[in-house]
Amino acid sequence: MTMKSEIISVGTELLLGNIVNTNCAFLSGELAKLGIDVYFHVTVGDNRRRLMEAVGEAMERSGLIITTGGLGPTSDDITKETIAEVTGRKLIPDEAELAKLKAIFARTNREMTPNNIKQAYVPEGSLVVGNDNGTAPGIILELNDTIIIMLPGPPIEMKPMFNEKIVPYLKEKSSTSLVSVTLKFFGIGESALEHQLSDMIESQSDPTIAPYAGDGEVSVRITSRAKSGEKVPGSIVRVTDEIEKRLGEYIYSYHNRSLQQVTAMLLMETGKTLAVAESCTGGKLSALITSVPGVSKSYMGGIVSYSNEVKQSLLGVSRETLTKTGAVSSETALQMADGVRRVCGADIGLSVTGIAGPEGGSDQKPVGLVHMALSAEDGTLTWERKFSGNRDKVQTFAAKNALNHLRLYLLNTVTSIDKSRY
Amino acid sequence: MTMKSEIISVGTELLLGNIVNTNCAFLSGELAKLGIDVYFHVTVGDNRRRLMEAVGEAMERSGLIITTGGLGPTSDDITKETIAEVTGRKLIPDEAELAKLKAIFARTNREMTPNNIKQAYVPEGSLVVGNDNGTAPGIILELNDTIIIMLPGPPIEMKPMFNEKIVPYLKEKSSTSLVSVTLKFFGIGESALEHQLSDMIESQSDPTIAPYAGDGEVSVRITSRAKSGEKVPGSIVRVTDEIEKRLGEYIYSYHNRSLQQVTAMLLMETGKTLAVAESCTGGKLSALITSVPGVSKSYMGGIVSYSNEVKQSLLGVSRETLTKTGAVSSETALQMADGVRRVCGADIGLSVTGIAGPEGGSDQKPVGLVHMALSAEDGTLTWERKFSGNRDKVQTFAAKNALNHLRLYLLNTVTSIDKSRY
Repeated sequence: MTMKSEIISVGTELLLGNIVNTNCAFLSGELAKLGIDVYFHVTVGDNRRRLMEAVGEAMERSGLIITTGGLGPTSDDITKETIAEVTGRKLIPDEAELAKLKAIFARTNREMTPNNIKQAYVPEGSLVVGNDNGTAPGIILELNDTIIIMLPGPPIEMKPMFNEKIVPYLKEKSSTSLVSVTLKFFGIGESALEHQLSDMIESQSDPTIAPYAGDGEVSVRITSRAKSGEKVPGSIVRVTDEIEKRLGEYIYSYHNRSLQQVTAMLLMETGKTLAVAESCTGGKLSALITSVPGVSKSYMGGIVSYSNEVKQSLLGVSRETLTKTGAVSSETALQMADGVRRVCGADIGLSVTGIAGPEGGSDQKPVGLVHMALSAEDGTLTWERKFSGNRDKVQTFAAKNALNHLRLYLLNTVTSIDKSRY
Repeated sequence: MTMKSEIISVGTELLLGNIVNTNCAFLSGELAKLGIDVYFHVTVGDNRRRLMEAVGEAMERSGLIITTGGLGPTSDDITKETIAEVTGRKLIPDEAELAKLKAIFARTNREMTPNNIKQAYVPEGSLVVGNDNGTAPGIILELNDTIIIMLPGPPIEMKPMFNEKIVPYLKEKSSTSLVSVTLKFFGIGESALEHQLSDMIESQSDPTIAPYAGDGEVSVRITSRAKSGEKVPGSIVRVTDEIEKRLGEYIYSYHNRSLQQVTAMLLMETGKTLAVAESCTGGKLSALITSVPGVSKSYMGGIVSYSNEVKQSLLGVSRETLTKTGAVSSETALQMADGVRRVCGADIGLSVTGIAGPEGGSDQKPVGLVHMALSAEDGTLTWERKFSGNRDKVQTFAAKNALNHLRLYLLNTVTSIDKSRY
């Protein structure tokens, strides 16, 4: 069979934006692992004509069609009926499913309505896939050029059915699977990174090289086919090594980890303890760190010194500094880092102070200006950045920038480190 | 124009299941508010031929096409190029965008690479929509029978652009628009709320009544058609009053505001100052509060007392309490609230201590157990909750629960308040 596939999600609630379509991402990820390319996601409402249109198009271009939703008992569940019509199959009762349904209703002393019986009907010639978490069975329909797999909509029913029953079926149909390595970068923009790798990206075939960006970080995914069971293919290793040679300084994870995960790993491995003092990020930096399970061994705590009073009383920032250089200055950042390290009894103090906006900016100190500092036994660091964007973006980028400086500092404290572990 | 619309998401990462497509649900919900029907969601990869196919189909059946993604600087960002080709437009540089780009790169001291300049090119005859949170502008292309709107992919750029610039444009295009009132609830589950309103929901026609749930909050959107410019129709007012009569105690916003916005409004209006002490939420509570612009007048700061040492040294929690009742207890929560109020010189101290998991639970104190306290001049409050779910969910629910108790406390300090302002 051709492994070109397409996912059709059926449900008006999706088109109304009442729920986010997580089934599509789940199925796409699982299909990728099986080496099955997904070329289209299509979502239609509970509407016979438009579902027929979508299924018709899909049958012309895809060898595998997976639908989710519309298998339930109610009158707006029309997936089976519509696909039977498009493929010219009769709907016939599946005796096993009918018996199972009757048993369920007998056990719960509920009366079976015609609606319920409808659930046991399947297109003639289908393979019926039992549903261990609901009443609507899945259906596999093998046509000449296309396989159509109909799955229930609720993730709690669809996911186990796919993992336990559809994956083995598809594995039999395919022979290879995809292996991906995702490198994560900080401190380089998507365009600059693309510029550095343009020759590789333009000449790519196998492995494929896909850069993408989000929330101030950039990733590059290197993907290649592998015999099922095979470890990372040499072709991926060669591409990874070349990218490492060109942009290694910006890579913070070789295993698709988040910046906070990698930084927390380094904290735990070096045995160093951390405390943070933040002003403009207002708790975001601390929240990023504590989102990592188990970090409590390394993280003493933090102070959100939003007011100048708190900067003085809790962190010991001097009144002179606040009046002379202001709350947003490298001097204040440094005293915040020193102060939080001292009062929390930590090895390292990390601080952020800046102007998140929308108000509070000036010509000398525009919105987006952020001063940061790191204080440790062996010395101190201060740096500043100008971020653009709205309040949320400035806060997020500042918190991640501070985390990254901490990560680099920790790396330097370790001799002969194997970065590729992170 | 016909208000039949369709959303095309562009990005191979979506087809690989690397990210969930939240843009589609967001745009669909917003379009529904405008009375614009969404009939299809289509997702394609960064592939010229398949994107052309999707856009071609969309132009045949939809009056409004919104695309997200593929506007970035890299060579696999092809949305503009492909749509220019399908519609027979040349790509020309937009001088204003070019200037803006140069300014951004100058301000942030980054060098501009050739593929950045590509971002300032737009199809001939388009309306260019500035991007306040990124470098890729949005594009509106008005054709004879179809309007094509191209938006950037990152939600942090797409959502504000749509809300601030596309919504006003679309409102102008549509003669009648939908007026919605969104009530937000805290402390009642979606199913319990639906049960209370089931008779209204089942008999609904105009206005429509749509409940939603997310992140521990529930909202109900009441929607009706109205002449453009018309104020809230009486039909909506009547439904709102009925819901208020049944569930008023749970309503915290009558204007679709977030819990943190409403709480910050109350802080500013009452003139009270706040300080928070948090353990298991690790900064999330403080970050929620400081996500609201202008809150710095009311928010003194916070202490993330992650370690017991910091609970003692900075907040003055007694060693006896920590050994006798433990860090997760109402006694500790109360001393944290008192302590942070004192050391930050605030009118109100709010505290959270609990077990976020996945580790650290016991039979007596299971994962998800959270103790909270509020300390003020006129007295103290303590309460506990048992949340279920993963680490992120426990942290988020605990932070919001604390915020809600603060909101209720502030409401009680105000006499003769008009809740409907919030």
